[in-house]
Amino acid sequence: MAVAYNKRTHRCGGLRIDDAGQAVTLVGWVNNYRDHGGMVFIDLRDSEGITQLKFNPETDPKAHETARGLRNEDVIAINGNVAPRGDNVNPKLPTGEIEVEAHAVDVLAKSDPTPFEIEDDTEANEELRLRYRYLDLRRPSMQKTFRLRHQLGKIIRDYFDENGFVEIETPFLTKSTPEGARDYLVPSRVQQGTFYALPQSPQIFKQLFMVAGFDRYAQIVRCFRDEDLRGNRQPEFTQLDMEMSFVKREDVMDMVDGCIQRLFKEILDIDITVPLKHMKYAEAMDRFGVDRPDTRFGLELQDVTGQVREIDFGVFKSAIDAGGMVRCIVAPGAADKLTRKITDGLTEELRGIGAGGLPLTKVIEKDGNLEFATGVAKFVQPVCQSLCDAVGAKAGDSVFFMPGTYDDVCKYLHYVRTRLAEMLDVIPEHRWDLLWVIDFPLVAWNEEMKRWDSTHHPFTAPVDEDIHLLKSDPGKVRDQAYDLVLNGEEMAGGSIRIHRREVQQSVFELLNISEKESNLKFSHLMEALRFGAPPHGGIAFGFDRWAMLLAQKASLRDVIAYPKTQRAVCPLTNAPGEVATAQLEELGIDLRPEVKAKREAAS
Amino acid sequence: MAVAYNKRTHRCGGLRIDDAGQAVTLVGWVNNYRDHGGMVFIDLRDSEGITQLKFNPETDPKAHETARGLRNEDVIAINGNVAPRGDNVNPKLPTGEIEVEAHAVDVLAKSDPTPFEIEDDTEANEELRLRYRYLDLRRPSMQKTFRLRHQLGKIIRDYFDENGFVEIETPFLTKSTPEGARDYLVPSRVQQGTFYALPQSPQIFKQLFMVAGFDRYAQIVRCFRDEDLRGNRQPEFTQLDMEMSFVKREDVMDMVDGCIQRLFKEILDIDITVPLKHMKYAEAMDRFGVDRPDTRFGLELQDVTGQVREIDFGVFKSAIDAGGMVRCIVAPGAADKLTRKITDGLTEELRGIGAGGLPLTKVIEKDGNLEFATGVAKFVQPVCQSLCDAVGAKAGDSVFFMPGTYDDVCKYLHYVRTRLAEMLDVIPEHRWDLLWVIDFPLVAWNEEMKRWDSTHHPFTAPVDEDIHLLKSDPGKVRDQAYDLVLNGEEMAGGSIRIHRREVQQSVFELLNISEKESNLKFSHLMEALRFGAPPHGGIAFGFDRWAMLLAQKASLRDVIAYPKTQRAVCPLTNAPGEVATAQLEELGIDLRPEVKAKREAAS
Repeated sequence: MAVAYNKRTHRCGGLRIDDAGQAVTLVGWVNNYRDHGGMVFIDLRDSEGITQLKFNPETDPKAHETARGLRNEDVIAINGNVAPRGDNVNPKLPTGEIEVEAHAVDVLAKSDPTPFEIEDDTEANEELRLRYRYLDLRRPSMQKTFRLRHQLGKIIRDYFDENGFVEIETPFLTKSTPEGARDYLVPSRVQQGTFYALPQSPQIFKQLFMVAGFDRYAQIVRCFRDEDLRGNRQPEFTQLDMEMSFVKREDVMDMVDGCIQRLFKEILDIDITVPLKHMKYAEAMDRFGVDRPDTRFGLELQDVTGQVREIDFGVFKSAIDAGGMVRCIVAPGAADKLTRKITDGLTEELRGIGAGGLPLTKVIEKDGNLEFATGVAKFVQPVCQSLCDAVGAKAGDSVFFMPGTYDDVCKYLHYVRTRLAEMLDVIPEHRWDLLWVIDFPLVAWNEEMKRWDSTHHPFTAPVDEDIHLLKSDPGKVRDQAYDLVLNGEEMAGGSIRIHRREVQQSVFELLNISEKESNLKFSHLMEALRFGAPPHGGIAFGFDRWAMLLAQKASLRDVIAYPKTQRAVCPLTNAPGEVATAQLEELGIDLRPEVKAKREAAS
Repeated sequence: MAVAYNKRTHRCGGLRIDDAGQAVTLVGWVNNYRDHGGMVFIDLRDSEGITQLKFNPETDPKAHETARGLRNEDVIAINGNVAPRGDNVNPKLPTGEIEVEAHAVDVLAKSDPTPFEIEDDTEANEELRLRYRYLDLRRPSMQKTFRLRHQLGKIIRDYFDENGFVEIETPFLTKSTPEGARDYLVPSRVQQGTFYALPQSPQIFKQLFMVAGFDRYAQIVRCFRDEDLRGNRQPEFTQLDMEMSFVKREDVMDMVDGCIQRLFKEILDIDITVPLKHMKYAEAMDRFGVDRPDTRFGLELQDVTGQVREIDFGVFKSAIDAGGMVRCIVAPGAADKLTRKITDGLTEELRGIGAGGLPLTKVIEKDGNLEFATGVAKFVQPVCQSLCDAVGAKAGDSVFFMPGTYDDVCKYLHYVRTRLAEMLDVIPEHRWDLLWVIDFPLVAWNEEMKRWDSTHHPFTAPVDEDIHLLKSDPGKVRDQAYDLVLNGEEMAGGSIRIHRREVQQSVFELLNISEKESNLKFSHLMEALRFGAPPHGGIAFGFDRWAMLLAQKASLRDVIAYPKTQRAVCPLTNAPGEVATAQLEELGIDLRPEVKAKREAAS
């Protein structure tokens, strides 16, 4: 009689010693097969765990005979009885105190030998794992990861639901977004010669929801960006996108704080104190050289322009004379740890990213006094005591200087700080430093293009008190954006938006977005601002990134079921692929001759 | 002092007589402005309701002065006190027993006169409403609809979560789906000359989740189909997509039954009895002429081939001689209601869809006997009594005959039945007839293309007992599909899938899908079936359609925030649009010369 595979009584992770004696039906994959003196033992695996099955040739000859033919990854269904394992308890398995004596077994599907073993510590390379992703996903750690991702979505959706947010779907076939370039295009068949764009974000749509009076909107939504995939990026990615009306920025941050607190508690059982810290952009740059500071460790930037102004060191002097500055990082106790070879290497890295060099020295004690030794010691020695006093340097410390413009100094010392933290191993584990960075400059001068660019996006509201500076001194205008930073990574970014048409117009003018261009791209937003737009603001979270972080994975590809490689290819399906000429004809498009020639040559 | 618009105390629908005396802060849109002898009355509207504000020139001259300048759709924030309305209670409003005496008002945004009034009974045409969708969505009925849609998603997600389903996201940039044609294509920039396709459904991806051991998967997901938009379709639409392992079809239907029951209870407070009825395809066709029968009313099809076989009526005779049949619909009491003009019109409609005509007659009583009168009476009169007995026709009834092949008779009589139901007004209101249709034929012969086509899709499993007929008599093979029908509309469709590679191969062969083609399109599925695929099945719901139905709306466009027109255009954003030549160059594509010429001529 067939085993009723659709009537399983338990999952493979669920049986315990208390279940001993029960008749059970289990289904799953053969994880492991062992023949011990006639007895066949099989570890049966499903999405929730593993149970050992025992097939006895004496009592159940037919089941035993079938079991002998089983191999890894075969799919089976069994009837059996739960029995204590006695002396052979396996403490590593939750089900390790029992086994199931199988009386009947059905083979639901046979498996060929798999290209790699289904186990967490696989040695298969990523390309192979992605090609056979359905096997890769069978690994218990992957099962766990995607359950966590499911839980993440559920907690977020429940939280926003409880807080009165409405989930409304936004279109995927839409028009070029503000960023314009990097849109994925979709040719229209019905209107040949025109194209839809896949959304880089639902920014304008959600602002229009606020104009529509929805008050609170939240959606977990796919977004698309056709950019070269540096490191950890994907052409399609998932965002939690939300927007609220009648709020100031504190209200949005408070709302997000509550969500973050719940996520950490429910997923990692970690208590996060809210409200999260707020740090002004200026402070973040001054202390850490970057707008997404990692505050888990010190090694902060310190200004020593005053201390070194008078010394005879051309490199510092020329920077200061040009209106720049000298700042430094003191690395406590690093003098012995960082060999000449290491610091030379670091200096080379800095040259590689554009710095002129990395003036450094060490602090030693000599006859009860502090002195500098090695590196630029001879230049800075004259101000040794005052400099050490000012920056709190002690004997045994290393000091890394950087002369230059504020922007350059921040950039290079942030790099130095990050590398020092790694080299000195000062980043504490299991620490989650969350903070909001606020009061960014609304715009930054783009020297190359000779224009002002938005620090965030053109819809970000300026701080009210600074609006009068929009024309006279735009670089001084702060915005109402807020970026959520975790351990030095930007995890979410949002802002209060402009809800007054004349302010939006001024900002477009400042950004040199012509009326024609704004009409073309944003006419529906500009028009909507005529009809009673409430004050509003929101935020977008990188959902994949949050999943990666909470699952403590190293790559976004580990938290996306069917991810793409850095060449934007899916190794499972081989997308993208060639299509029939007839399909392109219907769309009114054709490959460019050089592309066609290249493909024909390749095929 | 400014009113703290971010510190509202209540929503506009929330105040009641018990709140009288309370100091409140409200925000919202001016819905209505009236000046009564100096007093200004304003109906303030937000997403949850309306509250009347009163501005008194005596007590609050400044607020009153500001209020006098307000116009419809201005956005304001007010401080005030709740007061009973006394004699002027408005029983139509939940807040109708109170008003708020406003002491301070801030204008947060002015509104230009809107292109149409913000009210449920708008007379604006749909094109205008879609162009200013953010105003259209402000109408209370739209707010309610999208809250219902939110609730629908929440209930579904919660239900499947409680039942152990994991939500996993599937890719949007993927490869051509089984259906192939009607894919939206996305040119790849990184691999010029190749294209992604937007998914018509995540069918294969979810089957691979089952191979991956996820056991239970559910996702609310966008799908895309580039087809000519007949009536109520959208190029992008939302599905609830789910799949289960180790199930038979009853298990999937039972799981869905539970979800449907909960939806009707929680959204409409209607009790649905489960399990829902199951009806075999053959019975549905026999009784209703269609595989999605509307069982809310009778007018069923009845076979009268036996009764009319011997009569001298060429139209019937030739159909029967050709191996066909004659079936009829009896319309009780219709003889008086359906005038000659009406039945002539109906006959014309039938000719329009390909029928030869619509032989009909009426039953009358003459001298205590039944007789036929009008139409084809003289031909069928000889078998009047036996025919009337067989089909239960009584005096006063009309009888509509249809001779022909089984398929044609079903098609035309289904049409007749649907139109009769409308004309005779026999469809009961507020009735929700849900049922499952099962045991479809696996394939249907495509006479035009001379081949077998899948009734559902190529992954649908045949009924086990019929597998042996795949080669010898494929038309007899039933499949393991199940379609959920509500009031004659298909609301969901699913099946047990093929999980054995050799069966899948046989079905591909039957469908004349070559090994080359199946390798090209489905190689990842075929390969996956080598490595231990569990028995599995699932279903997909039209989420938009469910929202439309439960919100009792007539059009899908009423339940999609930013829908497209029948020309696949978004009137709000004007998508699709032209793009810069440089963008196309980067993608390695170009418009075809004739398309380019046409667009240049037009611009």
